[in-house]
Amino acid sequence: MLKLAIFSVFYLLSIFTSCNSQNTDSLVIRKIFSEALTDNTAYKNLEFLCTKIGGRICGSPQAAKAVEWVKHVLDGMDLDTVYLQETSVRHWVRGEKEVAIVNPEKASSYKLQACALGGSIGTGEKGLSANVIEVKEFDDLAKLGRQNISGKIVFFNHPADPSFYTTFSAYGGAVAFRARGAVQAARYGAIAAVVRSATLAHDEFPHTGIMHYADTVEKIPAIAISTNDADKLSNGLKNDPNLNLYIRLTCKELPEVVSYNVIGEIRGTEHPDQIIAFGGHLDSWELGQGAHDDGTGVIQSIEVLRLFKALHIRPKNTLRAVAFMDEEMEQRGAKRYTESAQQMINSRNSILDQFKGDSLLKGSKFRQPAEYIGNHIAAIEADRGGFTPLGFSIDASDAQLKKIQSWKSLLLPYGLYLLEKGGSGVDVSSLKKFGVPVIGLVTDSQRYFDYHHAASDTFDKVHPRELQLGSASIAALVYLIDIYGL
Amino acid sequence: MLKLAIFSVFYLLSIFTSCNSQNTDSLVIRKIFSEALTDNTAYKNLEFLCTKIGGRICGSPQAAKAVEWVKHVLDGMDLDTVYLQETSVRHWVRGEKEVAIVNPEKASSYKLQACALGGSIGTGEKGLSANVIEVKEFDDLAKLGRQNISGKIVFFNHPADPSFYTTFSAYGGAVAFRARGAVQAARYGAIAAVVRSATLAHDEFPHTGIMHYADTVEKIPAIAISTNDADKLSNGLKNDPNLNLYIRLTCKELPEVVSYNVIGEIRGTEHPDQIIAFGGHLDSWELGQGAHDDGTGVIQSIEVLRLFKALHIRPKNTLRAVAFMDEEMEQRGAKRYTESAQQMINSRNSILDQFKGDSLLKGSKFRQPAEYIGNHIAAIEADRGGFTPLGFSIDASDAQLKKIQSWKSLLLPYGLYLLEKGGSGVDVSSLKKFGVPVIGLVTDSQRYFDYHHAASDTFDKVHPRELQLGSASIAALVYLIDIYGL
Repeated sequence: MLKLAIFSVFYLLSIFTSCNSQNTDSLVIRKIFSEALTDNTAYKNLEFLCTKIGGRICGSPQAAKAVEWVKHVLDGMDLDTVYLQETSVRHWVRGEKEVAIVNPEKASSYKLQACALGGSIGTGEKGLSANVIEVKEFDDLAKLGRQNISGKIVFFNHPADPSFYTTFSAYGGAVAFRARGAVQAARYGAIAAVVRSATLAHDEFPHTGIMHYADTVEKIPAIAISTNDADKLSNGLKNDPNLNLYIRLTCKELPEVVSYNVIGEIRGTEHPDQIIAFGGHLDSWELGQGAHDDGTGVIQSIEVLRLFKALHIRPKNTLRAVAFMDEEMEQRGAKRYTESAQQMINSRNSILDQFKGDSLLKGSKFRQPAEYIGNHIAAIEADRGGFTPLGFSIDASDAQLKKIQSWKSLLLPYGLYLLEKGGSGVDVSSLKKFGVPVIGLVTDSQRYFDYHHAASDTFDKVHPRELQLGSASIAALVYLIDIYGL
Repeated sequence: MLKLAIFSVFYLLSIFTSCNSQNTDSLVIRKIFSEALTDNTAYKNLEFLCTKIGGRICGSPQAAKAVEWVKHVLDGMDLDTVYLQETSVRHWVRGEKEVAIVNPEKASSYKLQACALGGSIGTGEKGLSANVIEVKEFDDLAKLGRQNISGKIVFFNHPADPSFYTTFSAYGGAVAFRARGAVQAARYGAIAAVVRSATLAHDEFPHTGIMHYADTVEKIPAIAISTNDADKLSNGLKNDPNLNLYIRLTCKELPEVVSYNVIGEIRGTEHPDQIIAFGGHLDSWELGQGAHDDGTGVIQSIEVLRLFKALHIRPKNTLRAVAFMDEEMEQRGAKRYTESAQQMINSRNSILDQFKGDSLLKGSKFRQPAEYIGNHIAAIEADRGGFTPLGFSIDASDAQLKKIQSWKSLLLPYGLYLLEKGGSGVDVSSLKKFGVPVIGLVTDSQRYFDYHHAASDTFDKVHPRELQLGSASIAALVYLIDIYGL
């Protein structure tokens, strides 16, 4: 009986404590969202990045300017550490505006809205022209054979499938032609590849994106055309299978240049060597302004730090915002970040020694670019557009997943209903091999691929509230991980 | 032992049946979404309604044209019944473009972006001018007293609170000034009311909406101004409390006219007298095109019928799409609909007699405007904008709520995570008193009030996929209610 009474008291106490901390957490999260939705710093930051710096593919002057500007913004935020993490990056340039003309020498000629795919070689100054052979699948190439393809331009006209609920599935079914179309076409002797843009939108914007060559296959130029023009070209070929397409690209690869990840931190009061990282990628394709891809992810990550500062929440662990360089081409920034993490894990003990100084543990500031990385508790990526957040996609152990799911009642009032196993994001995913739980912010995908990698990915397409719901969502998750661990 | 074996067999059978029907339902719902996302009929319909007919406040020629057009569309869909349901409606007209000028006789004069509130009286041809007194709350009026208000224009400058997650909460805190500002101001002798637009957007669009007079209080003119101009006027008053505002409105109330709800039905194969209704409102404010409010709701309701026809799903119960007239002013269409429901319930038995004819029960078509209403199994309203749907707000018994929640696993793959108790919508809500479960489609609210009742509520603000996810969501719920009842 006494045992039962003691048990009951403990039980009641634990319920009380649990309810109490639930209440506290709920209030803090309410404050995080309230602050995010009433402050316009992040929106103004995004406006600057998009409209004053603009599109910023790695290696470009705009990318360099973006690095400088993000560091400047972080420097002004009274953080504990702000530093750059160096990496070399490719320097591919688009050159002059691309030209693609159907039947250039006929009265019936018309231009196609076209852009070079990222990493494509040029055509030479004079351009090239040839007949066009349309295919829908890679298998069609084998069926047609070299005799029907050699010397021609292969037109991959594979529409993204609109019947999927998430547009990432639609994109996933179409992007292979952008990435591997040129190599596959070249195997059959094609002299160029034209790819229908990997988007569900029906409009005039060509969508670029990285394409890959293979060492053993001749490199041929590759362009994307708008979906409207893909339909037009396809109809044109039905009427005239012998139509001629002229393409001129002056894109080329310049020597690699030095660039940087940009990192800002709030030092943890109890475990400064334990890191909760969150980031987006600072580079973007240069046709648009890199607004949804991925200006919003970078700005949201910076904003998470601002929210903690503004609300005077002092984290137990170190919070780190990372603006990754070069997600779009080769993820050199992410690789550099992961290598550092690996090095630091290998020499973690010696690093921890550095933190034994009183001045550090008491939270005094030091701003040298010390690349301590230490132990990652979690790494979160925001790279699915700055739309209304719906939850998180979690690549972690079952126990870690369950722990995050146990916070559902705290996150659901803000629309964060998806707390499921799934991919994180290309920049943080390689931390997985070190046992780091990696997490992606999931947002409403319906409009994302309308703008993705196109000239239409501009600041005005981002809604200030949708942007800030994302910032607050990440901050809320970071807050809970900081308090309860993973 | 035998009993246990029998029990087990039944148990296994029931699991098998349950899994099987879950699978069937899941496949049907997948087909509904797939059809909705791959067909552009609804988007084209919305385009016509918005751009060829445009804004259509009740009583207007545009509203009459919309009635005719919706009936025409339904007539072309091979439905079992299409008919109009008559009601008289108010006929308020905006008149000439409203004028609002600060300090009209000074060099420093400037115009405000203004519109009359719906139902407001005019100012007379010459307009009126007076000093302005700014208040934030109704309580401020009592504090200021008649001596400070009489003969002035009261400016209600109560910003919507952006800190709420759902913008309906923000709107809810601001809309009272639009609805009741004129009456409250007139009690203290004000000669006009100016209201800050009930929106979270910071822009140049004034947002209209219904305002109400009281029989015992003098009627004064009422306008909304854009949020940017509300800030400007407020700053202007800080610099010059004696500034003068000139207003000219020529809006007025004309004699009532006859209008209609438009109704289309697919007759139920088993229970033709049992109705699952779904609708939106056909009227809209006339500043914009009535796209999100509520062109999308009407078009989605029509599309639900099209989805059932296209997929050859023959419902057991009668499916009824209702385009309600006059949601914005007095819900005369909804009242007329509810009155019919009441009459029909009262005389249900005699009505059921009509259905005993073989020709009916065998599903043959009859197109007379027979206003049988019969028994409503459920009524669903779509009037929160054509944005990404998030679920349903359910005003029903606990048992009915639980039944809908038991379908969660079928709806969740399409983002429909919210299946909670809550309000339905103003047009279907009055069916509640007859015991009808009433349900509202919940959509992502973040952008809704940017466009609500403003000139910016245009077709281009509606995303085709978001529109069609809404159509499919309603259709999926209708399908489940049809199969399993409520």
